Amino acid sequence: MTDYRRLRVALLGAGAVGSQVASLLLRHGDELADRAGARLELAGIAVRDVDAPRDVELPRELFTTDAETLITGADIVIELMGGIEPARSHILLGLGSGADVVTANKALLATHGPEVFEAADRVGASVYYEAAAAGAIPIIRPLRDSLAGDRVVRIMGIVNGTTNYILDRMDSEGADFADVLADAQRLGYAEADPTADVEGYDAAQKAAILASLAFHTAVPLDAVHREGITSITADMIEEAREAGFVIKLLAVCERIGVDGGESISVRVYPALIPRTHPLASVHGANNAVFVEAEAAGSLMFYGAGAGGVQTASAVLGDVVSAARRHIAGGVGVGESTRANLPVVSIGHVTTRYQITLEVDDEPGVLATIAGILSEGGVSVATLVQTVEGEDGDTARLIVGTHRAADSALSATVERLAESDVVERVLSVLRVEGE
Amino acid sequence: MTDYRRLRVALLGAGAVGSQVASLLLRHGDELADRAGARLELAGIAVRDVDAPRDVELPRELFTTDAETLITGADIVIELMGGIEPARSHILLGLGSGADVVTANKALLATHGPEVFEAADRVGASVYYEAAAAGAIPIIRPLRDSLAGDRVVRIMGIVNGTTNYILDRMDSEGADFADVLADAQRLGYAEADPTADVEGYDAAQKAAILASLAFHTAVPLDAVHREGITSITADMIEEAREAGFVIKLLAVCERIGVDGGESISVRVYPALIPRTHPLASVHGANNAVFVEAEAAGSLMFYGAGAGGVQTASAVLGDVVSAARRHIAGGVGVGESTRANLPVVSIGHVTTRYQITLEVDDEPGVLATIAGILSEGGVSVATLVQTVEGEDGDTARLIVGTHRAADSALSATVERLAESDVVERVLSVLRVEGE
Repeated sequence: MTDYRRLRVALLGAGAVGSQVASLLLRHGDELADRAGARLELAGIAVRDVDAPRDVELPRELFTTDAETLITGADIVIELMGGIEPARSHILLGLGSGADVVTANKALLATHGPEVFEAADRVGASVYYEAAAAGAIPIIRPLRDSLAGDRVVRIMGIVNGTTNYILDRMDSEGADFADVLADAQRLGYAEADPTADVEGYDAAQKAAILASLAFHTAVPLDAVHREGITSITADMIEEAREAGFVIKLLAVCERIGVDGGESISVRVYPALIPRTHPLASVHGANNAVFVEAEAAGSLMFYGAGAGGVQTASAVLGDVVSAARRHIAGGVGVGESTRANLPVVSIGHVTTRYQITLEVDDEPGVLATIAGILSEGGVSVATLVQTVEGEDGDTARLIVGTHRAADSALSATVERLAESDVVERVLSVLRVEGE
Repeated sequence: MTDYRRLRVALLGAGAVGSQVASLLLRHGDELADRAGARLELAGIAVRDVDAPRDVELPRELFTTDAETLITGADIVIELMGGIEPARSHILLGLGSGADVVTANKALLATHGPEVFEAADRVGASVYYEAAAAGAIPIIRPLRDSLAGDRVVRIMGIVNGTTNYILDRMDSEGADFADVLADAQRLGYAEADPTADVEGYDAAQKAAILASLAFHTAVPLDAVHREGITSITADMIEEAREAGFVIKLLAVCERIGVDGGESISVRVYPALIPRTHPLASVHGANNAVFVEAEAAGSLMFYGAGAGGVQTASAVLGDVVSAARRHIAGGVGVGESTRANLPVVSIGHVTTRYQITLEVDDEPGVLATIAGILSEGGVSVATLVQTVEGEDGDTARLIVGTHRAADSALSATVERLAESDVVERVLSVLRVEGE
């Protein structure tokens, strides 16, 4: 057996991902040493409670509550605690004491990314975060390295497994949101408090990370437009299906031209995508990231978006990369945020829309609605009217628009809602991926 | 504008990919400098004939026939000439004079990979080859880095665009191989001499590269079992469709246990895959690589497998990586081939099979055939018999087997062919991806 240099690895956190990482580090030590060119010695696991139950059996002597001592003695720090503090302080301490950092902490990177990356740059260390964006799917390296010579035009990602699971079951079973959510919670696909997932917060963090990388621009989390899926009904999904669409919660990162200059838009919302689009066949809790680049064309990356052992795979890949860099010498390569493109608000974004209205079923209604749309600068592409109601006194009108700016569309939808002939605006959904 | 350090880039070859690389380097100089942290100065383009027509207009003064002088003055050498010589000598010269090398040369890497990687290791340089395996699809970094902490179990790749285009059109149009090939040649999807594609040589080179990376083992090209698609008929595709399959030319790299130890199998052949498998929906000239890993689970990477500008994207990503490494300092990280697993011959591989026979339509035939299969150790899973022939005197028998070793299967098929009741063995196809 080769006599490799030893690198001390500090693990912070022993939850679903952390316990798998520890277990794999211990079980596959020889193999990992051959690949990394260094022996990865698990120096300790910092946790709040040494005696808490773990997913995997691990040697008790590895656990410690003294994170600081563990970190300052480490060559590589793996942060899997989640949350902002103390994760942020621990990472900065690790970088400050010369360690490379591996983290899966999307919340931290989406809010304190620049601070962390600058701290790494100052000491010539590296921060690896393949597990922060789409679980086990390798998307960070492709964006950061493989596409570094190309210009990314658009990313459309299904980056939250919980919402994809819910929408997929609603689509296949015709079930209601609340029922599927309750079942997803029972089965462990959704948290007891599902807000972070179903309101799109988790996806927005990932969108900020992906957009920052793809557009070489530090995208702050509050620049990401965010809508969740709680208002999606079985009716809306059924209507989408009839029109050849499926509803997915998408993270869209897009290069757009505004007023002659170049800008980017980063947004998370449920959108209609054609059933023939590769993203439409992403089922269950899986994730996929669809990337369009000027030269490379369309690429798609698909796999498990979450799960302890799956995410541990991404973390360990980063640990091996960090080890290789340690052995190779040289300074870490920082994040490239030189492009520094402005992030525009959702109002500037143009997409196609599908608007579903409940209207009075009487002569002249269509003319009134067409008039409001036309005045608002929203051009109609398709129009489907079906009679509804027990007495047939109302009709359902589905308006497919040509591309319209979000601001113009929103103002127009408000005027439609106020119109005498419109009983209710049933849904307004954007169309992506056409 | 930042005053970056300049890195001299030598480009060897100005064909479909090379001319696009040159054009992008010249057009996106500022952007690439910001990303790489260094100005990438195209020092020259070595070609055989300075006056040959190019796909893209490029400054004449960049062209030279003196490759050696260009190479020895370069920080980064991009080899896009193809073929073994002089590409090999040029790459070794570049590495020897301290340059990092970017290449898309799958033929060279599949045959002389170890020599090239050792030469790089000796001087602490790096060799980048993202474009060598599946065109613009980022698959090298995911395998080399992202999955470095995981254990790849199986790779199934559609890695040759020409054959996928041909099989896809045969599938969708019911057309014959020869007709589609002729049309593909007319449209530029297939070469005038299509041997490298349709006989699986190109896919075998890529399979050797992918398997080497995935299994940390230098896999020689002649250890790759290779079958092409020239014997695939419209009938076989129609039969596959009826059984819920599609025929794809697959590069399969698999970790298998033989005699207690661990081995790998690397093989290229047309196989039946279920129409529900993600690879079944890879249409036209696209490529996709499906990876199964112990921890990460199933991943898929999808995109354009060829094309000048698409491949140029992958090449430029490598150039930026090489530049970042130059700036960061340190030595290059070599290929990890420490696992050094034995590559087994096709005889050891077990898969399910579908055997189609033309048999006499008389009593006792089934018993005879079942006997031959059973004697050969091949267990039957499904059996479909249809009467054929004008007089109804022959029948078509489709035998789906359970998993069987290739050696046992081949011997059994031979005995079937010799049997009095079998008129012809119409096809023998392996089933993958179930």
